[in-house]
Amino acid sequence: MDKPTILVQLDTDSLPSVFDRVVAVDAGAAHVFAYGGVSPENVRELVHGCIFTRGLKDLHRTAIFIGGSDVATGEKVLAAVREYLLPQYGLRVSVMLDPNGANTTAAAAVRAAARHLNLAHTPALVLGGTGPVGQRVARLLARQGAEVRIGSRQRERAEAVCLVLREQVPDARVEAVATASSSDAPAALAGRVLVIAAGAAGVVLLPKKVRATCATLQVAIDLNAVPPAGIEGVEAGDLAVKRDGVLCYGPLGVGGAKMKLHKTAVARLFERNDQILDAEEVYELAQAL
Amino acid sequence: MDKPTILVQLDTDSLPSVFDRVVAVDAGAAHVFAYGGVSPENVRELVHGCIFTRGLKDLHRTAIFIGGSDVATGEKVLAAVREYLLPQYGLRVSVMLDPNGANTTAAAAVRAAARHLNLAHTPALVLGGTGPVGQRVARLLARQGAEVRIGSRQRERAEAVCLVLREQVPDARVEAVATASSSDAPAALAGRVLVIAAGAAGVVLLPKKVRATCATLQVAIDLNAVPPAGIEGVEAGDLAVKRDGVLCYGPLGVGGAKMKLHKTAVARLFERNDQILDAEEVYELAQAL
Amino acid sequence: MDKPTILVQLDTDSLPSVFDRVVAVDAGAAHVFAYGGVSPENVRELVHGCIFTRGLKDLHRTAIFIGGSDVATGEKVLAAVREYLLPQYGLRVSVMLDPNGANTTAAAAVRAAARHLNLAHTPALVLGGTGPVGQRVARLLARQGAEVRIGSRQRERAEAVCLVLREQVPDARVEAVATASSSDAPAALAGRVLVIAAGAAGVVLLPKKVRATCATLQVAIDLNAVPPAGIEGVEAGDLAVKRDGVLCYGPLGVGGAKMKLHKTAVARLFERNDQILDAEEVYELAQAL
Repeated sequence: MDKPTILVQLDTDSLPSVFDRVVAVDAGAAHVFAYGGVSPENVRELVHGCIFTRGLKDLHRTAIFIGGSDVATGEKVLAAVREYLLPQYGLRVSVMLDPNGANTTAAAAVRAAARHLNLAHTPALVLGGTGPVGQRVARLLARQGAEVRIGSRQRERAEAVCLVLREQVPDARVEAVATASSSDAPAALAGRVLVIAAGAAGVVLLPKKVRATCATLQVAIDLNAVPPAGIEGVEAGDLAVKRDGVLCYGPLGVGGAKMKLHKTAVARLFERNDQILDAEEVYELAQAL
Repeated sequence: MDKPTILVQLDTDSLPSVFDRVVAVDAGAAHVFAYGGVSPENVRELVHGCIFTRGLKDLHRTAIFIGGSDVATGEKVLAAVREYLLPQYGLRVSVMLDPNGANTTAAAAVRAAARHLNLAHTPALVLGGTGPVGQRVARLLARQGAEVRIGSRQRERAEAVCLVLREQVPDARVEAVATASSSDAPAALAGRVLVIAAGAAGVVLLPKKVRATCATLQVAIDLNAVPPAGIEGVEAGDLAVKRDGVLCYGPLGVGGAKMKLHKTAVARLFERNDQILDAEEVYELAQAL
Repeated sequence: MDKPTILVQLDTDSLPSVFDRVVAVDAGAAHVFAYGGVSPENVRELVHGCIFTRGLKDLHRTAIFIGGSDVATGEKVLAAVREYLLPQYGLRVSVMLDPNGANTTAAAAVRAAARHLNLAHTPALVLGGTGPVGQRVARLLARQGAEVRIGSRQRERAEAVCLVLREQVPDARVEAVATASSSDAPAALAGRVLVIAAGAAGVVLLPKKVRATCATLQVAIDLNAVPPAGIEGVEAGDLAVKRDGVLCYGPLGVGGAKMKLHKTAVARLFERNDQILDAEEVYELAQAL
């Protein structure tokens, strides 16, 4: 008989996420081992406990999920986990990174855009493009061949993200734009076919009257769940709703696909023991849904 | 297929109660997510993780249990949990409060008395009536129409509890009595038909010779599990045992019904997603057992 | 229907061991309640939660596992757990102690030796004999009637362990030897038939050229999993491999039996509610495998 599936939830917050834990159960994990306060410094024994307990043929029945509200720390934990796996002996388990839902949210948003647009060569603007979700959205768009403009209140931060993106995606076509004041918005939006807003809660990144100035815009996706909307006029529940000629998605509209993707990705972990599911791999899953 | 049941155990102590966790399993929870160190300040994400993960038709398969040794903090956590539920959108889960077993113990004790007495108009004395269990016992008795005397070593504290009770139960008939020294006891007990002792461990609240002076007494219930008995002469295991003409219940005698009630209440959480089980609701369940 | 089995994992480290938790699942525990940061000071309520929740006929479906990287603290937690069980009322659950895998490792190592040697009267040397695994190896050997030499860099520490062993095993035949420098090694090894190395990682306790001087040696067991080997020339995976006329076991060779033993011991906890599985009891299980 197959050994029970175990998801080891490594959370960088002190209380491990109930959200991720419920999704793990609903994705079919028989046991969820939830750990809070996980850091690169204390993760070694947890990883070794995963790889040294079951024989090679059962290692795919154990997997690791890395979560928590701090995306940067989550990424460091992933790096540490990879360091402690021993692939040279086949001693590894599959790992998924989704701190703050960043990977599943970004993948679901880009996937929504791809239902309407051929992303290759699509001129796109990512508002809040220097935050953890925004950076992943930009990276996924760049990989699909889109022309990505990264918007940030501080242009230097957007430039820095562009540098990183050009390293991660060699043929990336990215540029930085300042979106410090509303007077910057028309220029940032000019010629864009797709806009995705992934900014902080409580900030209107794109006022309605600015949006009306952009004749090329076809798809607008707002990922901000806390009112006011990041893209003024988009409703939270919008799911490909046409408003003023633009197809709109709101955070709850994207959320349904994000949740399905999250569950699918966790279930997928138990199929093989050699997967690392970061933004790109989660996006591949989204394409197959 | 129904989603697995999940009980999210929010415990205000640093190590979440094994007791509550075992009872949750035995009540049929498929998964228990146990959290220690929960406070009103850190409970928001935990609640949101409950209500934002499953569709409306499955929300009753997730529920929250609030425990811990500090009843007052548990009550504050309940208030915070209620604040973060979103009933206006149907986004809520059922919640049970039972810190230190206070609700199930008080309900089981009052239910035991109700098997022998018509509580309406019954003159009752609650010793240790200002503690968390005592206050709940007094409240449940007052709601049933009993004439409740609240005993405390400090009369002012008993008066304060009376004020609260009159707010919570508008037609409550309650009065405060001092039980500072053994010479106070005869007056406190005078005319009482029921006495329930819910005081601190290690204190004899009612000596045998005082009890003998009270001709009206019919039922005596002692909830103190650590010797010496709070009501002298009552044995821990007493379950409606007649001693000197008085029906006696000891802590273990009440404990069996308390345990059954605890289990029933947890199981009940998974029937609907809109229940808040505090003392009164638990008592209703006790009446149906 | 039987109540689900529950293993309460009491771990003295802040993050409870994933290793022990996976083994618990694979041993058949339906639920594992994992607690980190457990100490003799905070264990009382956890133990009471085990013994006060299920009826006498179901108490064997709950059990306690004590783990963590600090063996001495684990032993203190075991002492505290025993104090809070109430065997006089039948209120107890079975308990297993295996901090850092010390008991299962020591038992598996001694059991490996017993497959080739009649341990009674066997002259043995335990290198690293004052560490937690080494002390258990020495104790198990002494109980089997072996003549045990305890090696330590500091002779006084080895003497102290001998004193303890003579108290624990009244007819123990033990003596201390210093193994401070490689020049001590030949004398320590002289006349030995069995050598077991249980020292700290990264130290060669027995160089190959010293081993070659000992004509009586038949079995060499090295428990150090981190290179270099504690007994030079023994390979990590050795499982009764003959090298230079000596049967060799390496840490991974012993590890398979240790893992099987660990699982068997956990499963055994749920058969009765009155077992305390420390080194000797685990060794008895090893003999039956």
